[in-house]
Formats: sequence, C-alpha cells, structure tokens
Amino acid sequence: MSDFVSIFDTTLRDGTQGEGISLSVEDKLKIARKLDQLGVQYIEGGWPGSNSKDIEFFERAKELKLKHAKITAFGSTRRKHTRPEEDPNLNKIVESGVSVASIFGKSWDFHVEVALGTTLEENLAMIYDSVRFLKQKGLEVIYLGEHFFDGYKHNKEYALATIAQAEKAGADWIVLCDTNGGSLPGEVSDIVRDVCSRVGTPVGIHAHNDCELGVANSLAAVQAGARQVQGTINGFGERCGNANLSSIIPNLQLKMGYRCVSDEQLRQLTSIARYVNEIANVVMPVNQPYVGSAAFAHKGGIHVSAILKHASTYEHIEPERVGNKQRVLVSELAGQSNVLVKAKELNLDLDRENPRTREVIERIKELEHQGYQFEGADASLELLLREAAGGLEDIFTLESFKILVGKTADSGVLSEAIVKVKVHGDIVYSAAEGNGPVNALDSALRKAILKYYPDLADMHLTDYKVRVLDEKNATAAKVRVMIESTDHRNTWSTVGVSENVIEASWQALVDSFRYALLNRKPVCQSDNIPAERLGLVNH
Amino acid sequence: MSDFVSIFDTTLRDGTQGEGISLSVEDKLKIARKLDQLGVQYIEGGWPGSNSKDIEFFERAKELKLKHAKITAFGSTRRKHTRPEEDPNLNKIVESGVSVASIFGKSWDFHVEVALGTTLEENLAMIYDSVRFLKQKGLEVIYLGEHFFDGYKHNKEYALATIAQAEKAGADWIVLCDTNGGSLPGEVSDIVRDVCSRVGTPVGIHAHNDCELGVANSLAAVQAGARQVQGTINGFGERCGNANLSSIIPNLQLKMGYRCVSDEQLRQLTSIARYVNEIANVVMPVNQPYVGSAAFAHKGGIHVSAILKHASTYEHIEPERVGNKQRVLVSELAGQSNVLVKAKELNLDLDRENPRTREVIERIKELEHQGYQFEGADASLELLLREAAGGLEDIFTLESFKILVGKTADSGVLSEAIVKVKVHGDIVYSAAEGNGPVNALDSALRKAILKYYPDLADMHLTDYKVRVLDEKNATAAKVRVMIESTDHRNTWSTVGVSENVIEASWQALVDSFRYALLNRKPVCQSDNIPAERLGLVNH
Repeated sequence: MSDFVSIFDTTLRDGTQGEGISLSVEDKLKIARKLDQLGVQYIEGGWPGSNSKDIEFFERAKELKLKHAKITAFGSTRRKHTRPEEDPNLNKIVESGVSVASIFGKSWDFHVEVALGTTLEENLAMIYDSVRFLKQKGLEVIYLGEHFFDGYKHNKEYALATIAQAEKAGADWIVLCDTNGGSLPGEVSDIVRDVCSRVGTPVGIHAHNDCELGVANSLAAVQAGARQVQGTINGFGERCGNANLSSIIPNLQLKMGYRCVSDEQLRQLTSIARYVNEIANVVMPVNQPYVGSAAFAHKGGIHVSAILKHASTYEHIEPERVGNKQRVLVSELAGQSNVLVKAKELNLDLDRENPRTREVIERIKELEHQGYQFEGADASLELLLREAAGGLEDIFTLESFKILVGKTADSGVLSEAIVKVKVHGDIVYSAAEGNGPVNALDSALRKAILKYYPDLADMHLTDYKVRVLDEKNATAAKVRVMIESTDHRNTWSTVGVSENVIEASWQALVDSFRYALLNRKPVCQSDNIPAERLGLVNH
Repeated sequence: MSDFVSIFDTTLRDGTQGEGISLSVEDKLKIARKLDQLGVQYIEGGWPGSNSKDIEFFERAKELKLKHAKITAFGSTRRKHTRPEEDPNLNKIVESGVSVASIFGKSWDFHVEVALGTTLEENLAMIYDSVRFLKQKGLEVIYLGEHFFDGYKHNKEYALATIAQAEKAGADWIVLCDTNGGSLPGEVSDIVRDVCSRVGTPVGIHAHNDCELGVANSLAAVQAGARQVQGTINGFGERCGNANLSSIIPNLQLKMGYRCVSDEQLRQLTSIARYVNEIANVVMPVNQPYVGSAAFAHKGGIHVSAILKHASTYEHIEPERVGNKQRVLVSELAGQSNVLVKAKELNLDLDRENPRTREVIERIKELEHQGYQFEGADASLELLLREAAGGLEDIFTLESFKILVGKTADSGVLSEAIVKVKVHGDIVYSAAEGNGPVNALDSALRKAILKYYPDLADMHLTDYKVRVLDEKNATAAKVRVMIESTDHRNTWSTVGVSENVIEASWQALVDSFRYALLNRKPVCQSDNIPAERLGLVNH
C-alpha cells in the first residue's frame, strides 16, 4: 500500500465552528493561499448552502491560482423526500464552481430517526442520490459518514450499508467521522481495518479531540489503512476542536515513514501555523506541539546544561525540520547557563566569572517575583542584559507626562497627552491626541524622539495586553502590560508592571523605544536646538 | 490484573517547568489540597535538593492533613563516585520528612556518557545505591527511568539493566519515562508489555506531549500493563507539557473500565482543573477536552437543534460526570435555536414568533462583526436579551466624564476621574482617585451609584483584558475590553469595544454595574437630594 497520505484541511469550514473563531472572506482567502504553500491536497472552503458569506468565498477563490490544493465545498445529503435536483444545498455546491464536493450523510440509525426524523431506507436513498447527482455533474466526491464510529458500534450492519451506498454511487473517497470525538484509538483501528477490507474506495478519517485523542485516532486510522486525514491547522473546531494537522503531518512524515508534503513545505509548518492563528486572532498556546514557541524551549537548569552539550538529549526532533527553533528560557528556575546562553545569542560579553552576571540573574528573579515576565518580552530582557554587560546609553529620559481623557453623552472620547522628555541633553515638550491614553502617550513620545530619529516613523504597536496580577487586591492590584511592536522588519515584545495601567504601559513603551533605538544613529545632533519647545497638537 | 490505576500528580514539580508557570509555596499548598480532594494517590511536591522554596513546602505540607494522597519528594540518583549518605540531594529528600521518594536515573547509554560523563557500570551502581539508601530509610521508593523509551530503542539490554538494578534494590514502583515526548503509542505499548513481562515490581508511565500523544501513550501503557500514570492537571510542564491528567482520568474511568477516583471525585474534575489554572495564573484554553468551557459548547445551528432533541446526538459523555455543563453559543453562526435556548436559561419571554427575537439576533451578529464577543461576556449578552424581551430599566445614564493621569520623573502616577451621571433622575457629580484611569472611573461611578445602592460595596473587578482587534490599524485599531467582576456570590463578565481603550472600558464597566443592579432595589429614593452635588475626592 502506498505511503502517501492525502491531507484535507477544513480550517475554513469545520474550524470556524470553534468558539471565538470567526473568519471574513478576506481572512479565508489569505489562509487558503498559505495552506496551498504548505502542500495540503484539499481545502474545504465553506458550506455554500448554509452561509451566504461562503458563496462569496467560492466566487473569489477562483482567482487564487493555487499551485497544488483543490478547493472543496461542503454540504449535506439531500433533504428527505426531495429530489437532488431540487435540493438547494446540493445545487449551491454545484453553482459554487468547485471541482470537489465533500458531503456528509448519516451513518447512525439513532440520528436518522431522532435528528432527521426519517426512515433508515430513505436515508440510504438520500446518500446514494446525492453522491450520484454530484458525480453526474462531473465533481470529485468525498463522502463523509457522520458519526460513523458511534453508528458502527450501535448498529454495524446499518453503518456499513450507508457507506456501501456511497461506494455504489461512485464516491471517490469514503471518510469515516468520529463526530462526537469519543472514540479510542483501538476502536478506530479495528473499525477502519474492517471498512478497508470491505470497500474498494479509498478511505479517510475525520477525528475530533474531545478525549484529547484526535491526533492518536488519526494516526491509528492511517496505520489501519486510511489514506486521507481531515483536520484543521492548530486543531480549531467545535467543542474541543478537530484533529490537529499541525501535529499529525510531522508525526506521519517524521516519525512513521509516510509522506504528506515535501520536506521544504514541512519546514514552513511553524510559520504557517502562526500565520493562521494571527489571521484568526487566536493566541497560540505557547506549549503547542511542534509549532508552539515553547515546543523546544528549555527552562530547567539541568536540561539547559545538557542541551548545550548535545541537542538530542532533550529534543525529539531537530526543530528546524518543522521551521521552529530551540529556545532557552530565563526565569527563576534559570541557572547561570540560561542567562549566559541568552547573552551569547546577543553577542554580549557576560561570562561566568563576571560578578555582573550574578547580579543580573538576581535582578531578573526579583523582577519576575514582582510580576514581570521576560519569557514573553524578549526586548525588555535584552535591554536588561545589555545594561549588565555595560554600554547601554540612555538616549532619552522622562521629565513628566500628563494625560487627559474626556467624554460627553453624545460625543466620542477625546484623549490627549503632554510629554516632557530630555533627548540628547535637550528638553523637548511634545503633545498629541490619541485614540486612548496609551496611544496619545505613544504619539507624544514618538514625536519627541522622531525629530532625532525620523526613521522610527515606520515603527508601531501591534498588540497590547493587560493582565491583572493579584486579583484579590482588586483595584489595588498590580497589572502587567505586554506590548508588541514592529518596524516591518522585526517584531519585539516589551513589558511593564505597576498598580497603574498607564505607568505599566509607559514602562513597556519606553522599553520598546529604547530597543528600537539600539542600533540607530540620530539624524541631527543637539547643537542648534532651543532648550524648550512646544510640539504641535497633531495626529 | 486489577483495574485500579494509581494517579501520580507532578503539577507542583514537573508542571512548574512549563513556560510561564511559577508557583509560590502558598499556591502549592492550595493546589495540593485540591488534588487530594480529587483523589490522586501521589502528589509530587518538589525537588528539595534543587529548589530551596520546595524545602519550605515540605515543611508546611506536614500540616495539610490530606485525606488520601501521599506527598512525594523528587530527586536524582546519587552523584557519580559519591556515597549515597554523602549525597546532598538524597539527604534532602530524607530530611523533608516525606514517606515517599520519587527519584530518576539514566536509562539511555548516550545520556550516561554525554550528559553525566560517567561509565555505564557506575550509572548502574548509582541507581542501585540510591534506591537501597532510601529504602533503608523507610521510604516508599518510586524509581523513574528517565528517557526509558529512547534508551530501550537505542540499547535495549542496557535500559533493561538499569531498571533491574532498581528492582533488585527494592523499588516499590518502576516508572518508564518518555522524557523527550517523542514516542508513539505502538512503541510504548510494545515496550511496556516487554518490561511488565520481565519485572515483578508494578510498572508506571510518565509521558510528555511533544507529539500531542501524551494522553494516548499513557492509555496505551495502561492497556499494556502499567498501573500508575504520572502527569499534571491541565498538562502543564516543560516544552509541550506532561501527559494531561484532566483527560487521562476520565478516559480511563469513563471509557476504558479502569478505576482511578470515585464517581463523586470525578464530578469535581472541572472545578479543580479550573481552580489550578487560576492559582497558576494560566488561562485555560476554552477548547480543552472534558474541562474546558467549550468542551460541551455547541455553536452550529444544526448541532444545537439536534442536541435540543437529544443530548447524546453530539455529546460523547454527559458533561455532569466530570462536573462540566452543556452550553449553547450565540454567534454569527447562531440559528434562532441558540438565542432561544439562552433566553430560556434566563427565564426570558422570547419565542420564535416574536419579531424582537429576529432583531436581537441581527443586533448580536452586527455587534460581533464589530468585534464584540459575547461568548466570554455572558452578562453583556444577558443585558441585550433582557432589553429585547422588554422590561430593562436604565437606572443611570452618563452625562460626561473626565480623566486626568500625571507623572513626574521622581513620583508615582496620579490618576483622577470626574463622573457626571443621572441616577433615578438626579444629576450626581462624583470624583475619585485610582491606581489607573479605569480604576478611577470605576471608583467615581461606584460612588455615584453607592448612595442609592450601598450593598454594591462588595462588588469589585477581578480581571481586565484588553485585546487589539485589527492590529494592522495600529494606533487606530479597535480594542476589546473584557471585565470580570464579582460580589463574592457570583462572578460575571462584560465587554466593550472602541478605538479608545477608555471608552471600551467604560462600556464594559457600565454593563457590569447594570448587571449588578438587575435584581436590586435602591436604598433611598430621589426625594430629598439636591440636583447637583460634588463628591469627595476620597479613596
């Protein structure tokens, strides 16, 4: 049997049924392009018979010029007692212009009777008619047996009868779905093996993660003969999500000897997975397997000492194979090794004998104790280490700032900031409006510095997080602000902690500018500039 | 063979090696009490030979009076060429006063030579001596074969020789570790079966989640003869985490016929898992299996229609068995069913025929399109539905507010807010200081309302999240603010969206007060109060 396994991605359809996931047509097109780069065979774009937004997607998808993947449209078998020609959802699949249809039908007698309210025979006809109709329209047809494993466990003969109808009607694939996500790998293995021995049509698996076995069930199915795996990037989906393709693809290819995508495509897995999360506005769990930022991050001092000697002491694969990289975390559990590795990454002169090294480790532990978190704020950490290594020049210092925010019942909110800083020895006053106090502060500070560093103009904030640290203290609670900034070449994160969200934001903002200024030279020196000046209120 | 499987929780030790996880001694004691309530057999409290904070934990753990679980102390085998009596880390285990020790030794020849820098024979002696030393001190000894599966795959004879030493020395358990997390269930099954056929000592499994197979590997090991499973609640741990006990326990007990905890204890799983996350200050992924808030949440209109007829159409177990519950999500994919179910939950009169029902569905979809997210803001949603059902009285309305925030180089940040609202027809001016602009606004608004509703005094903010929605718009980006409030009886969440973080916070705050006021009566009516009044600046 071939070792090639087809990957069917339903991020854009089943994935959107996850809580908190909502994709615009533009989002879906961007993701589809990336999925094509990854090398998947099928991209399920939506359910045209159910969501009108999806009809627009299929229309615009025609211009995508995918190199590799085929777009599929999802739908259900025809309604009971309706001819397929008259079924709107089947017709919308045809009208969408796709070359592949993925339709689901009932495999579980319980569902046929309770959920559909029809007879077992009518359901068999619904399956046959729908597959045949789409085949006659010239489409490739992927038939999904919804609730197949539960159906097989409750009434094996009927479940097998439903997929026999799909095969008889000419389906190109028969995909078995663990729709409730409650099956175990042993069951999946046995049932898939049985089905493969009975049908000539290639078989696929569509698993869910309700028992945290979505990946395991997919792998078990492939070992038992399935040659298509359906899932979503990062495991998005209803309830606990679909089977996670970001884990399945490397498992199949790097561990089990199957082939899904090229080695080069696999190396893009991490960046594609993160891209999809950004578009979907979902925070990737740092500890997500293979592609998470902590997947190859080592914290314990002993682990770090060992991997410095040889990476495979604590890494199961080379991270580069999936486009990820090794990281060393600096935290209270950090030994000297962690900090030294970080410093070395930055080409800083901090060695074991240097007393400053011990000082900076202590300072880091103390700050973390207060609530700072350097693991997600690389730029703030780098500034600390540079200070310890000596040679970090303070380009600007704060004299004062004031912020005013006001709103009346029938107007929007007005936010203004006045900032007084010393830049290269000169006092600079700057004022700005903003969409909020932090933006106003950011704009005012930026104006002050831009005079000396005009190319900072392309730097801006891309994310802003506030977390209350010790909630029991309610309004006296400390907050931690994390800011992400970019200048289109690099992205960096900084942190600030205070009981006051403005002060915490100020710290993170200042670190962000200090970081941006690390390797830049001022445009004009301080010679001809008056000691005080009022900036324009401008936005 | 017995169907009882021992659960060994290492949340407090291995779990703390996860990125972003840091537990104080107080945190660990609280978690230990909860784990005991859950019914685990062993709670690994820390590594006294490595972290001095852990020595304090073991001291204070003596007062815990656990009903059920035994506290264990972690450590490594003795140092090379050192007698166990002179090994500090072994002695600290003994001094900690625990009755159970869990020590790890090297099983992989590669690690012995590269990481430890010693001979294969010395390593065998290290294992034997250390186990024997602890046994002679009267401790129960759990021996962990670190990297056992990789060691077995590379040099089977040596790996087996290492655990033979532990058995010879009297170890009570031999736990096989997949330390790099790279093994597959088939391999784990074969190797565990082989080991069980060779040793008389009971065998355990310690898996990691680097391939998203931590749970599957643990289950496979049990089926192959292991009778102890090590893991962490919610899968905390280094890199991709330890095997997730929150999924393993219900899988073993509800699906595979094993017994770990009582049915009553299992019903506490969800609340204990969430409690641990709160203490560890980690956000639980909504889609976490079994215990996540979306684990039994249904979004697609078809799913919702079906589960209203019969829950098992789309649920693999009854959520109550793990202490979770079914939820119906209201979102743009919502059909009428979702909104009606929500309204019914709230005892509101909203039925299919009511034109207001269609209006509120449209309004919800429109707001969600703008960035509001009602899935995590139940209180804001309830207010919307109550408005639609009629009968929601607006107790107060905003006239205006102003906020001032200031800082000088050598002082902290000052934040003041002035709020002018109409409460029960009276204009009320109120001013307050705060730790930040939102707190100041909150305090000022609260003072205005407290005059009429003094028992609102026990209501306060417990969490505050800001998320930038359309980051490409940088400073013009919309932000979504989610606020969580509590009055010690209930906790509720509200949401606000705007380009201005203060306005978004204001919306969420106002909803929070409106929700708190839903079922309260004012203390004094508006008769004798002057039309305008200036509140005190007070905190």
